[in-house]
Amino acid sequence: MKKVIFVIGVSGCGKSTIGKLLAQELNIPFFDGDDFHPESNIAKMSNGHPLNDADRQGWLETLNDLAKKQRTKNSCVIVCSALKQKYRNTLSKGVESETKWVHLSGSFHQIFERINSRPDHFMPSELLQSQFDTLEIPTDAIRIDISLSPENIIKKIKHEIMTTSEFGLFGLGVMGKSLCRNLANNGFKIAMFNRHVAGVEEDVAKNFKAQYPELAQAEAFDNISAFVNALQQPRKIMLMVNAGKTIDYVIEDLLPHLSKNDILIDGGNSNYTKTKERGDYLKTKGIHFIGTGVSGGEEGALKGPSIMPSGDAEAYLMVKPFLEKIAAKDQNNLPCCTYVGPEGSGHFIKMVHNGVEYVEMQLLAETATILETLGQNPDEIANTLASWKDTANSYLLEITTAIFRKKEGDDWLVKKILDKAGNKGTGNWTTIASAELGVPSTLIASALFSRYISFYKDERIELNSNYETINASELNITTQEILEAYQFARIINHYQGFKLIAEASNTFKWDLNLSEIARIWTNGCIIRSTLMEDLVEVFKNTTNLLTNPKLIDCIKQYQPAIKKVVSQCILKDLTTPALGESIQFFNGITTKYASANIIQAQRDYFGAHTYQRLEDTSGKNHHTIWN
Amino acid sequence: MKKVIFVIGVSGCGKSTIGKLLAQELNIPFFDGDDFHPESNIAKMSNGHPLNDADRQGWLETLNDLAKKQRTKNSCVIVCSALKQKYRNTLSKGVESETKWVHLSGSFHQIFERINSRPDHFMPSELLQSQFDTLEIPTDAIRIDISLSPENIIKKIKHEIMTTSEFGLFGLGVMGKSLCRNLANNGFKIAMFNRHVAGVEEDVAKNFKAQYPELAQAEAFDNISAFVNALQQPRKIMLMVNAGKTIDYVIEDLLPHLSKNDILIDGGNSNYTKTKERGDYLKTKGIHFIGTGVSGGEEGALKGPSIMPSGDAEAYLMVKPFLEKIAAKDQNNLPCCTYVGPEGSGHFIKMVHNGVEYVEMQLLAETATILETLGQNPDEIANTLASWKDTANSYLLEITTAIFRKKEGDDWLVKKILDKAGNKGTGNWTTIASAELGVPSTLIASALFSRYISFYKDERIELNSNYETINASELNITTQEILEAYQFARIINHYQGFKLIAEASNTFKWDLNLSEIARIWTNGCIIRSTLMEDLVEVFKNTTNLLTNPKLIDCIKQYQPAIKKVVSQCILKDLTTPALGESIQFFNGITTKYASANIIQAQRDYFGAHTYQRLEDTSGKNHHTIWN
Repeated sequence: MKKVIFVIGVSGCGKSTIGKLLAQELNIPFFDGDDFHPESNIAKMSNGHPLNDADRQGWLETLNDLAKKQRTKNSCVIVCSALKQKYRNTLSKGVESETKWVHLSGSFHQIFERINSRPDHFMPSELLQSQFDTLEIPTDAIRIDISLSPENIIKKIKHEIMTTSEFGLFGLGVMGKSLCRNLANNGFKIAMFNRHVAGVEEDVAKNFKAQYPELAQAEAFDNISAFVNALQQPRKIMLMVNAGKTIDYVIEDLLPHLSKNDILIDGGNSNYTKTKERGDYLKTKGIHFIGTGVSGGEEGALKGPSIMPSGDAEAYLMVKPFLEKIAAKDQNNLPCCTYVGPEGSGHFIKMVHNGVEYVEMQLLAETATILETLGQNPDEIANTLASWKDTANSYLLEITTAIFRKKEGDDWLVKKILDKAGNKGTGNWTTIASAELGVPSTLIASALFSRYISFYKDERIELNSNYETINASELNITTQEILEAYQFARIINHYQGFKLIAEASNTFKWDLNLSEIARIWTNGCIIRSTLMEDLVEVFKNTTNLLTNPKLIDCIKQYQPAIKKVVSQCILKDLTTPALGESIQFFNGITTKYASANIIQAQRDYFGAHTYQRLEDTSGKNHHTIWN
Repeated sequence: MKKVIFVIGVSGCGKSTIGKLLAQELNIPFFDGDDFHPESNIAKMSNGHPLNDADRQGWLETLNDLAKKQRTKNSCVIVCSALKQKYRNTLSKGVESETKWVHLSGSFHQIFERINSRPDHFMPSELLQSQFDTLEIPTDAIRIDISLSPENIIKKIKHEIMTTSEFGLFGLGVMGKSLCRNLANNGFKIAMFNRHVAGVEEDVAKNFKAQYPELAQAEAFDNISAFVNALQQPRKIMLMVNAGKTIDYVIEDLLPHLSKNDILIDGGNSNYTKTKERGDYLKTKGIHFIGTGVSGGEEGALKGPSIMPSGDAEAYLMVKPFLEKIAAKDQNNLPCCTYVGPEGSGHFIKMVHNGVEYVEMQLLAETATILETLGQNPDEIANTLASWKDTANSYLLEITTAIFRKKEGDDWLVKKILDKAGNKGTGNWTTIASAELGVPSTLIASALFSRYISFYKDERIELNSNYETINASELNITTQEILEAYQFARIINHYQGFKLIAEASNTFKWDLNLSEIARIWTNGCIIRSTLMEDLVEVFKNTTNLLTNPKLIDCIKQYQPAIKKVVSQCILKDLTTPALGESIQFFNGITTKYASANIIQAQRDYFGAHTYQRLEDTSGKNHHTIWN
C-alpha cells in the first residue's frame, strides 16, 4: 500500500530532520514543503510580510498535486507545518485514505529552548506563541513526543505506519464478512475479529482469511487485545454484531483496550434512541461513536452497500475515506454514503428505510396475489412483473420477478414456502416511532401487521372453515390497472416514509437533508428504484412529495386504478391491506374537513377534554355541557 | 358510621378484658364470641376434643349474622380469637368495609407469663404454642402491643377507630373530585389532599369540601404529613394525578410519611410497564402497590365507574370493600370491579379499553360522515343513530346521538368544532404494545393514525387544492347497510381488543379472565354496550370471539354490507379507514394461504433470512440461492 506521509508540527519541532531520516529509513522520496512556495509568496516573506490563508491556498494545492502524483509511483514523505485542519484537508484531498499524518509534538518551553540553542537561530517567543495559537492539534495523526531520541522516533513512526492495520472489523457474520472483503478489495489493510467460542466459533477470522485471496494482507484475530493493538491510532473499529444488548457487551469488552479519540462504528440495525445513549456514554470515556445504517444485504455489503452514518461529525471525517470508498455509487458516481446528521439519525433513517421496504414487499405480495387470482401462474406473474420494469423498476421488483421464475423440479418454489412471515424488529420500531412522534405511517403499520396476521396460520385455517368466501377469480380488473394501483401505493409509501424522517428531523433538531437521503438510497440498498432517483430532484424543492407537480399528475393518473382495484378486491373477499390503506390515507390527507370534530365532541362529552372552534383561530379551548 | 369492632388474638392476650373496656368506653354493646358456640361444639369441647374447621364454620357464621344484625342498630364490640384469615373472612362477610380488626399482640413469653400468673389459670406451653402456630397475623388490623396499660390500649384503639379517615384520595382533579364524592356518598370517611401552589392551587381540598354537603365528614389537607397521619393504618391512598413522571415524584414525596404495609393505589392512566416497575420498587420499601384503570369519565367516577385493579393480590383484599362499593353495578348487581391480575395488568386492560374506545369513536365518526354525505343534517343523523339503539346500543352511540342534536343558536354545535383530534397517549401505547407483542391490532392503529392525520389540518387544506375529488353524494348505499357495516366493524374491533389482552396474558403469564373483563366493562365505562354484555357469555367458552356460532352468523349477515359500504366510499373518494380496515383484516385472518410466502422468499433472497416449507412440519429453516 502506497502512502503519503506528512510530517507536521510547529516551527522548530524538528520536522525536516525527522522527515529526512524517515525517508532514508523507508527508502522513499523526501520533499520539504517550503521548497514549493510560488515566487509571490517568497517575495512577500522576503519583504517581511506574513502569508495569509489566501496566499497559502495555491501552495497547499501544489503540495496536494505533488502528493497525488507521487502516490501513483511510490510512498513519499512531505514536510509541512500544516497547523490548521483546513490546510490538512487541502493537502490530503483525493488521497485521504492513503495519507498518514505524523505530528511532532512538544511543549512551548521545550521547543523554545531547542530553537534558541541552535547556532545562528533565534525565534522570539511571540512568534513561537503565534504558532501554538494557530495549531489545531490533529486527532487523526500519529503523535510523536519530540523528547524521544531521533532513532526511537523513527522506530515508532515506522511501527505505526508499516505494521498496523488501518481499519478493524469486529464480528464476522454474513454482513461483517462481506464488508471485510469489500474493504480489502478496495485496498484497505484491515484487521478482522471474531470471538472464540469453544466448539461453536473457532478460528472464524483465520479460516475466513484463508478462504479469500483478497484477504491476504488482512490480519485475523480471536483475541480482543491483539486485535485492538494491531490497529493504527486513532483506531477505527466497525462493530457488525447483533443489535441490542450485544452491542453494549462488546463496547464494555473493548473499552479497556482503547485509547482516547479511538472511533467505534456501530453498523448493525440498532435502535436510534440507543445509539444516542451509547454516543453520550462513550463521549464520557473519550471515545468517538458513529452509528450507521448499512443496507444492501449480503451482496450489497460485498459489492457496495448504501451507508447511513451519523453521530460524531468530527470523527466521521476520519472514517469517511473508508465508508465512501466501499459504498455503492450513484448515477453521478458519487458514493451512496453521506454524513446523515447528529445522534442516532443514521439508524433512524435506516429504520425508516426498512419500514418503506416492508411496504414495498407487501405491495408486491398483494399485487402478485391479485395476478394469481386472475389466473396467472408464477411464470406468467414473473412475465407481468418483468413488463413493469420500464415504468416501475426497483430492486425489489427485480428479485420478485426472479423469485416467481424459480423452479424446484416441475413446480415453482414459491408455492412451497410456508406463508408465515418473519421480522427482525425494524418494522416494529418504525411503527412505534410513528406512534410516538405523532406521524401517521399507516402503510408501515399495515405491512407490519400483515406479517403478524400471517403468523396466526392455525387460526387462519380454523376461521377459514367458519366463513365461506366468494370465488375471487371474477375480479374485473386489468394488469394495467394493477400496475397503476401499485404505483399509486408506492408514491404514498414514499410520502409517508420521508414524512416520518422530516418530522423526526424537526422534533430532534437533526436538520436532515431529504434529497441527500434519497440520493444515498438510489443504489446499494434494498429500496433502490427509479422512483427513488426521481425523489432526489423532488426533495430539492419540497419536503412534501405530494406537492410536486409531476407526482400530482402521477397520482391523478393512477387514482382511478387504485379505486377500482381495491374496491374490486373488497367485493371479492381478497385482502389487500396496504393497497387499501394507500387510498384510504390519500383520501384522509386530502380531506379539507375531517370527521375529527365528532371525535373532539365525544372527548369533550365524556372526559371534559375540551375542543377548539373552526372560527376561533386563537386556539382557545372550549367546553360544553352536552346533556 | 356504625362499625363492627372485632377484638382478636391468641388465648390469654387479654381480649375479653380489653373488649369489655372498649365497649364500655364507646357505650356500645359487647359480645363474647365464645358465648355463641352451638350445643354440639360445647359438648365436643367438654369431652376434651378440639374443634376442627368444620365445627367452627357454623359458629363463625352465627357471629357474622350477629355482626350484620347489630350493625343495622349501632356499633358493637365482638371478641373472638379469629386466628386464621379464612375465619376473619367469614366473620366480616357482607360488612367488610364496616369491620375494624383490633389485634392484641404480644410475644409467646409475655403471654405465657401472663396466663400462668392468673389465679386458677394454667395453660401448658404446648397449647399456647399451637395458638401461635395457627395465628395468621392480620395485615389490615389495628395492632396493639399488650404491654401497654389497659387505659392506654383503649385510648389508642379509640383514636385509631374514631378519629382517623379510612381512605385517602391524593389529587383533586376532575376524576379525583368525582371519586371523593362517590366515596363519601357511599358512607366512607375519607381524607382528601391537593397540593398547595401559591397563587395557582390554594385551599383546593378545603374549598372542595365546603362545596358539597356529602363531604361534611371528609378531612381536607394541603399538607402531606397531616394527610397521611389522618389515615388509619394500614393506610389506603389512591393517587389521582397525571400519569407519567408525576406519579414517581408523588411516591417519593409520600414515602417518608408512610408505614410498612400501607397501600398506594395508582388510579391514573399509567403505562403498564411502569406500574410493574413501581410495584417492584415499592415492595422493597414494604409498601403495597395497586395499579388500577378507572373508566367512566367525570360522570362515571361520580356515579360509579368501571374499576380495573391489579398488582398486589393480598393488598387488594383491603381496598376491595372501597373500590367495589363505589364501582358501577352490572346487570346482576355485581360490582364492575374485579381483581384483574398481577403486575400492571389492570393498566394494560385499561389501555386496551381506551384503544377499543378510539376505534368505536372513529367508527361513529366515519359512519356519521357517510350519513352526512348521503345528505342528512345533524338532526337527521341523530335520528338515524337513535334508531340503531335497538340493535347496536352503546354509551358512545348514545352520546354521539346527543352530540348531533346539540344546537348553538340556529346551527348545530358539532359543525363549529375544529376538526383536529387530540389524544392523551393511551391509543399510542396500545399501538406500541401491539407492535411489541406481535399482535395485529390494525383498527386501533387506524383510529390513532386517523387522529394524527386530522392534526395536519394546514397540509390537508393545501393538498385538497391540488387534487379534485368526486362529489361523494352519489353513494349507492342505504342506512341499513351503514348500520350493518358499523356492526361488522365493531365485532372486529372487539375481537382485536380481546385478542391483544389474551396474547399479553399469555406472554406475561397473567392468567386473565376475558369474560370477567367483559363483565366489568358492561357498565360504568366508556365502551359499555349490548355487544359487551353478549361477550361476557361468549368468553365463558372461548378466547376467540370469531369462533362463537352467534357471532359467526352476525358476521355473515353483515358481510355484504361492509363490502358494499367500503367499496362505495373508496369509489367516491370518501375516507373510511377503520371501516375499510375491518374488512381487510377479516379477509386477512380468514385466509388459509396468505401471501407471506412471497415475503419470505424476498427476505431469503436479499438477506439470507431463510424460510420454512409448507410440507415440512419440523420447522426446519431452508435457504435458496435464488439468482
